[in-house]
Amino acid sequence: MESIIIDMDEVMADTMGGMINWYRKQGYNGVIDYAKMPGGSWITGFPEEHQAMVRSHLFDPGFFRDLPVMKDCTEVVERLNKKYNVFIVSAAMEFPNSLKDKLDWLNEYFPFLTWQQFVFCGSKSIVHGDYMIDDLVRNFAAFNGKKYLFSGAHNSEITEYSRLDSWKHAAEVFL
Amino acid sequence: MESIIIDMDEVMADTMGGMINWYRKQGYNGVIDYAKMPGGSWITGFPEEHQAMVRSHLFDPGFFRDLPVMKDCTEVVERLNKKYNVFIVSAAMEFPNSLKDKLDWLNEYFPFLTWQQFVFCGSKSIVHGDYMIDDLVRNFAAFNGKKYLFSGAHNSEITEYSRLDSWKHAAEVFL
Repeated sequence: MESIIIDMDEVMADTMGGMINWYRKQGYNGVIDYAKMPGGSWITGFPEEHQAMVRSHLFDPGFFRDLPVMKDCTEVVERLNKKYNVFIVSAAMEFPNSLKDKLDWLNEYFPFLTWQQFVFCGSKSIVHGDYMIDDLVRNFAAFNGKKYLFSGAHNSEITEYSRLDSWKHAAEVFL
Repeated sequence: MESIIIDMDEVMADTMGGMINWYRKQGYNGVIDYAKMPGGSWITGFPEEHQAMVRSHLFDPGFFRDLPVMKDCTEVVERLNKKYNVFIVSAAMEFPNSLKDKLDWLNEYFPFLTWQQFVFCGSKSIVHGDYMIDDLVRNFAAFNGKKYLFSGAHNSEITEYSRLDSWKHAAEVFL
């Protein structure tokens, strides 16, 4: 069985969407400028004076627990899980409080996956497998298998990789 | 630079020793029988009537935060870290409350390592590298590099692998 390595933030979890929800709840009406996101981080789309606050909220307990699931992700990952060795690999180690939150989030929304399939790391350079689905090209650098860039405003300028524009698209490619 | 993948429990951390300390503090005087440990788990060396309690304590917040560091481990890992790409890979996902504890423990006792070097996983089958130091042969099954079994009472029956009997021994082999 071939293996697929799937990223969490901006692939399975709508991290930017969760942050925008939080930002609005704080009472801020700043414009989110998607045109300023290319280059790898959606944080640069927030008003400059709020970017440090937004980045700091990534470290707060609970933030990663409440993220919306990307559209169609649950159904497609459930089908992939029958045909591939699925591993969920998240570069979570930068955010110590996210570890338990991410595990609880996976257990809630992806109950058909087991803890044997989860990997929280700092660098993805030591994971290997047949396919990797990720939104950040830096995670592809050392990967031995085929790479698929999951589209987001923060990677719209990238042209070098095969893309998945949605989970429906992923289903077409892998199923 | 070659990479070394180092396990935490029973390799860097004296998990069994921490458990024995806790067991004594609870007021139990049961004999710890090292001869009953071979086969992969030191839990079987505890009195039978206490094994379920001991296993359950592995899930308690704080247990993995308070473990003793294995003798000479800090100094040798610090030296390895200058000569190799060191990754600390722990199959921690089975114990959800251990994740933050393990990260805090690493940051306290190994401050020269960075979060980019840490991996918490369920299965080690997707990590690759040049060398792996581990106390459990099941973690070697899919590994592409050279394997070193770190000796403990629970793996004393194994004969198939090169062994490291201590961190001093590891220094002789790798430095």
